[in-house]
Amino acid sequence: MVKAVLSVVLVLVVISSTIAKYIPKTGKRIPQTLSRGWGDQLIWAQTYEEALYWSRSRNKPLMVLFHLEDCPHSQALKKVFSENNELQKTLDEDFIVLNLVYETTDKHLSPDGQYVPRILFVDPSMTVRADINGRYSNRMYAYETADINLLISNMQKAKKLLKAEL
Amino acid sequence: MVKAVLSVVLVLVVISSTIAKYIPKTGKRIPQTLSRGWGDQLIWAQTYEEALYWSRSRNKPLMVLFHLEDCPHSQALKKVFSENNELQKTLDEDFIVLNLVYETTDKHLSPDGQYVPRILFVDPSMTVRADINGRYSNRMYAYETADINLLISNMQKAKKLLKAEL
Repeated sequence: MVKAVLSVVLVLVVISSTIAKYIPKTGKRIPQTLSRGWGDQLIWAQTYEEALYWSRSRNKPLMVLFHLEDCPHSQALKKVFSENNELQKTLDEDFIVLNLVYETTDKHLSPDGQYVPRILFVDPSMTVRADINGRYSNRMYAYETADINLLISNMQKAKKLLKAEL
Repeated sequence: MVKAVLSVVLVLVVISSTIAKYIPKTGKRIPQTLSRGWGDQLIWAQTYEEALYWSRSRNKPLMVLFHLEDCPHSQALKKVFSENNELQKTLDEDFIVLNLVYETTDKHLSPDGQYVPRILFVDPSMTVRADINGRYSNRMYAYETADINLLISNMQKAKKLLKAEL
């Protein structure tokens, strides 16, 4: 009887150690999300290549957002960006979205330098819309929290595609 | 009194509609993760540029994994890959990891074509280790579920860096 119980216990231990998922020494982590807090309900592209593919195939403009986790301007903008329902709804329904914490090799995405936060729009014809910019002449594609309505109005501009669909 | 109650209700409605987060018409979504089920405890790079940067700066080899959500071979491999503790621990401690569902523009990552699942190792010196391959001559970088131990042994190979650290 004792042997039988021990066998059962042993089997259970083996099963549980096989099933148990890997947990890092430093403790269990929360899986990283592609939204990084900029809109958990949006479907974010992972890479610029992927975003361009979606933009072309769905004929929707692309918003590319560069930011950094340890940049207070980025974090402040993220709060108003993620909490603005009009902005989130428009992005969800009419845009392809990509947020990046590392620069791409494509220089068209940094027309006046690599700073954060920085937002660029790309037309489905794969043209970077350098004409759609914020209010700072030394950082043309930067937006502060107070510029959220300018950003929404720039999104409306970006929705007027360069080449109308056939 | 009725007016006062109505005012309070109105204020509450306004507050809750302001605070309420955007929810798509099709219902609330689960935020997408960078792991896509291949290891929720691993710290995944988002892009190839980011992964190369981490690989160089931390002097760790990079594993790049191409897969597709609707590919049964990818899904089968994902199950054994994510449930193998030895593999997950080694990746977490000794590798930079990147999983992609869209191809990059870098042709070095598709030495014999763009198929999935496909796993390539990249040395911190930024050399794609085309010499570390699986068992199929027509798809050199493919792994089936039965090849998980070969994959682990290839990871050990990749850990022997081309250029030893100074």
